[in-house]
Order: sequence, then C-alpha cells, then structure tokens
Amino acid sequence: MVVGLGTGSTASLAIEELGRLIKQGKLKDVVAVGANYQSRVLARQFGVKTVDLNDINIIDIAFDGVDEVDFNKNLLKGGGAAHTMQKVVDSFAKECVILADQSKVVLQLGSTFPVPVEVLPAAISPVLRRLITLGGVPEIRSALRKDGPVITDLGNMVVDVSFPNGIPNPADLEMRINMIPGVVENGIVSGIATSVLVAIQDGDNVTVLDLEEFVKLINVPTNENSV
Amino acid sequence: MVVGLGTGSTASLAIEELGRLIKQGKLKDVVAVGANYQSRVLARQFGVKTVDLNDINIIDIAFDGVDEVDFNKNLLKGGGAAHTMQKVVDSFAKECVILADQSKVVLQLGSTFPVPVEVLPAAISPVLRRLITLGGVPEIRSALRKDGPVITDLGNMVVDVSFPNGIPNPADLEMRINMIPGVVENGIVSGIATSVLVAIQDGDNVTVLDLEEFVKLINVPTNENSV
Repeated sequence: MVVGLGTGSTASLAIEELGRLIKQGKLKDVVAVGANYQSRVLARQFGVKTVDLNDINIIDIAFDGVDEVDFNKNLLKGGGAAHTMQKVVDSFAKECVILADQSKVVLQLGSTFPVPVEVLPAAISPVLRRLITLGGVPEIRSALRKDGPVITDLGNMVVDVSFPNGIPNPADLEMRINMIPGVVENGIVSGIATSVLVAIQDGDNVTVLDLEEFVKLINVPTNENSV
Repeated sequence: MVVGLGTGSTASLAIEELGRLIKQGKLKDVVAVGANYQSRVLARQFGVKTVDLNDINIIDIAFDGVDEVDFNKNLLKGGGAAHTMQKVVDSFAKECVILADQSKVVLQLGSTFPVPVEVLPAAISPVLRRLITLGGVPEIRSALRKDGPVITDLGNMVVDVSFPNGIPNPADLEMRINMIPGVVENGIVSGIATSVLVAIQDGDNVTVLDLEEFVKLINVPTNENSV
C-alpha cells in the first residue's frame, strides 16, 4: 500500500501514528510518499519507509491537514507554504482523507485565512496586480529567521491574498488564480478531498465525525461565516 | 516607453531592429523588459537599455514570435522552453504584437507542433499521467549538449504533448492543463495577442499583413490543417 503524507501540524501527528502502527505490526507492506521535505523527514524519523513520487504508479490513500474546509469539501491550504506539491500528491491519490478539528470548518472559504499563492519570483509584480483585479488584497509573505520573503521548498515566493468580499465560488477562483501567468499554484483545493474527518472536543472526550455527519449535527448559523 | 521583448528567432530580429532604431535616433526614451535570459542578453548586445519586470508599473507594448497562430489569435509557444515568463510579459503588456511568417498560421493549433508544458521536476510522473487523461501523448523534452532532460531557465522540465485528435478549443485546453497540480505553465496562449502581423514572401518581395487581412486573402482549405 502506498500512502501519501501531508505536511503541517495535523499531518505530522498522522505520520507519527502511521509509524506507531507499523512498529506494532498492525500495518504491513506500507510505503509512503512525502509531498514535501518536512513530511519525508518526519516519516524517516518515525520509521515509515519513503519512496519518491516519481517512482510509483499509484497512491492508494493520502492523509492531509487543512487550514479551512467548507461544507462541500473545498479546502484552503498553504499556511505552511507547502500547498503546491501537496496538491500534486493529494490529487494523485485514489482516496484523499482530510483531517480537521471543528475550528477548521467554515461556511465560506477565506473566512479566517487568506488564499496562499505560490508565485515565480521573477513575475511577482505583475502577478500582484492581477490578483488585485480579481478582488484580492495581496501581501507577500515575509519570512522569520530569514530576511525578506518566505521562499518555498520549490524556490518561489508566497503571496497571501485576502478577499474582503468573500469567496462564493472556490472552484472558479482557484481556476482564475492559476490562470495568471507567473502563478505556480494556489491554496484553494476543490474536487480533490474524498472524505473529511472532523474531530470534536467535548471536555476530555474527542469524537471523530465525517464532515456530512458534522454538518447535520450543528445548527448552521446564518449570520456568521465561522462555525 | 516600456517595450516587452520576446524570446526566439523572430523576436531576436525584432530586438536587433529595435536597437537599430534607437541607435539611429528614430526611437527615444525606450527601455525594454526581457522576458528571459536570451532576450536580455540580446537587448544589451544591440544597445537596448533593459529594466527588471518587477521595477516597472506598465509595459506599453510587447513584441513576440510564435510557433503557431490560428485565425482567432490563439497562439502556441514554447519551442524554446521560454513560454512561462513570456506569457507573464505578454499578458502584462497593454498591446501584444505577434510577429509571424505565413508558415506559422494554422487552421487549428497543434497541427505542426506539440503543446509544451513546463512541469515541476518533483511532479513529473503524476503530471504525465494526467496529460494522458486529457487525450495527450506526452514526451519529456530531451536536452542537447546536456545529458537528460531540458531544464528551463526557471529550473523545471518541459513536456511536449501531441494531441492526435486535435485541439478544437484552445482556451479550454490551456485551462485544463494549467489546472493539473505540478504544471507551471503551458504553451497555449489565448486572449493575449492584440494583433498578429503575418509576413508573406513572394520571390524577393515581403509583404506584411494583419492576420485579419491575411485570412481574407487566402482561400481557406477545408481538408487540411496547415495553411
């Protein structure tokens, strides 16, 4: 079985658990594909054998975290600047399972996070202008522990784009941003997640529900975006 | 006036001519933006002052060559693996003028050239599979004077994709290819050229026509793709 590994804090816990299950002999014949540097390092650290994405024919299942997810399994990713290769792995997998806690579920994408856009450094200025014409407020992500901008594992810059008027149609905006020359990939992910697991904390108890069950459970508020 | 420079054999002749006009004093206050390494080197060689794309607010006009152009000003570019940054410059320009000889004009894109797709090396295998599902026959471009694949100025690979069933809707295919995670940019360019100049050779005489005039002039063959 080939497992695609996500990147980020939630995905890191999943990698640790995967390593534990392999060590306990509960999972056998598992190899993993790490989308990014961080996930590959963690996999090795927790005893999960990794293979290169280009050396396999299929990914059976991918696990990944998310920054926001709406009721239709549209995702917003890229807080960790890892969304480009993560989209490659998640979209290549037969099943893509998203792990979220209830704070990640929103009525509309963009409610709590901007849309991260990976941009070729040579094209940054024209791309910023085009993002503004799409109604966005773009800001180049500044690095910490490094002067100047964040540079991704792929050598590009990240622009965080807020949409003050909301994102009513995520798939359409995903397409419009990706069609700007100079954009490598953006953090809206529509049509890729096959299931979303939502963890709900109630005191010391944690319940895990499918997104569909979670949506049925809650009363959808009508005057707020954040659930 | 800010002029965007194309890349390739035709664009190189335009850069040489631009330099001549500046040297003769027929053009003044011109600075140029080179989309790629080659165009910047040529500009300096022919005495055209260059500025960085990220240091300007506007490109007044861009000149560029093309591999194929159809009757609706859809372009196919990327034979020189320079299409990504070229699309950035051409789409940013207020006017984008395409220079072609009559052999470049086709009834349908893809008639004589495959579609070049710039791809992240880490994602090459999944992207090849996705290109096949779009009906394409992809081939990684091999380098000359270097072992292995061509690597672009941006550090990526180029996949040349033939479409045996033709490309009836260039804008749609351009979008579908760019939406594959791992694709940086493809060589179909729809909706960017503002005018196309077609040079027609008749013995020693060369006539230059607007694409619209050229289309009126010729009898459109109905059983062939190449004009």
